[in-house]
Amino acid sequence: MQLNIQPVPLEKAFRLLNHGPTVLVTSSHQGHANIMAAAWNMPLDFNPSRVAIVVDKKTYTRELMEASGTFAINLPCRAQAELVVKVGSSSGRELLGKTPDNKFAAFDLPTFAASKTEAPLLEGCVAWLECKIISEPHIQETYDLFLAEVVAAYADNQVFSDGRWHFEEHDALRTLHHVAGGFFFTPGEGFTTKP
Amino acid sequence: MQLNIQPVPLEKAFRLLNHGPTVLVTSSHQGHANIMAAAWNMPLDFNPSRVAIVVDKKTYTRELMEASGTFAINLPCRAQAELVVKVGSSSGRELLGKTPDNKFAAFDLPTFAASKTEAPLLEGCVAWLECKIISEPHIQETYDLFLAEVVAAYADNQVFSDGRWHFEEHDALRTLHHVAGGFFFTPGEGFTTKP
Repeated sequence: MQLNIQPVPLEKAFRLLNHGPTVLVTSSHQGHANIMAAAWNMPLDFNPSRVAIVVDKKTYTRELMEASGTFAINLPCRAQAELVVKVGSSSGRELLGKTPDNKFAAFDLPTFAASKTEAPLLEGCVAWLECKIISEPHIQETYDLFLAEVVAAYADNQVFSDGRWHFEEHDALRTLHHVAGGFFFTPGEGFTTKP
Repeated sequence: MQLNIQPVPLEKAFRLLNHGPTVLVTSSHQGHANIMAAAWNMPLDFNPSRVAIVVDKKTYTRELMEASGTFAINLPCRAQAELVVKVGSSSGRELLGKTPDNKFAAFDLPTFAASKTEAPLLEGCVAWLECKIISEPHIQETYDLFLAEVVAAYADNQVFSDGRWHFEEHDALRTLHHVAGGFFFTPGEGFTTKP
């Protein structure tokens, strides 16, 4: 368990995703678990706290999401960029029946337990959102689009506190923003503009 | 008209949004036009090119979107941060019947014509996506969520070419990533990680 993890009030959980980070989605069902990368995510509401995320129907993560009705969004950081690319370019389904039989073991990924859902939370990330799927079968099937209620949220208080990201002293903990083909940005200059 | 605008192939249009920028939404119908800020957007597919965006039902932009069936996503840059906050904290509906009667005139916003939709495109931005709404009344009404097909896309080739953003020499043209309350990041370090 990470030492710096702090709860984020649900009505402020959108601020974890508002600046557009690429995330890792974890899901678990009946002893099976998986993890995948997902750049296509966004807040959907702040009260109630909701998110939207695209998860391809080919993915094993989605199979476990749909079976359990839950998933978690993990925000990886600069120190985990290589891991994000590895996790994003491998299939958990292909590991089934092999040794190790899951990505967490294959990539040596330490996790800790969520409080309200089954999905494992990845250590070393800088924020986590536990999500319950809002059943919308038509858009799930047609667009691979999932809507979910955020039922718990946490962040590493070294870089997120009082409802704000502040990465100044922590380059390795900056969020990742994928463009394409393993090319990422991390957040640079932060500034406040008043109307 | 900007000099550096170049078309972006539709199957690569998702790369304009993949790193999570805050955008400006423009819409127009029967001589009325409006513009608003929207941090909650994401790619939805690359073939066909589709996007998802949240637009509150109170907004005048949405009224014009629903009337015309189209809208445009404009990606503002560092030089426009103050403008984004101004546009995002004012209502086009309240200007109706006044002089000037729209935000473009009130904030002195130069635009150029889109090629396939009615929505005006804002000069000084660094990318533009012309969008046709995919009618999904249930999620529009329930979640304020709009899905759309991207029918044309363009970018400023000073900072986006060959399917990649490259802001190195152009701090003023970096995209904006809103956290909350007028606090933004711009993209900092860019790097490539291979699996």
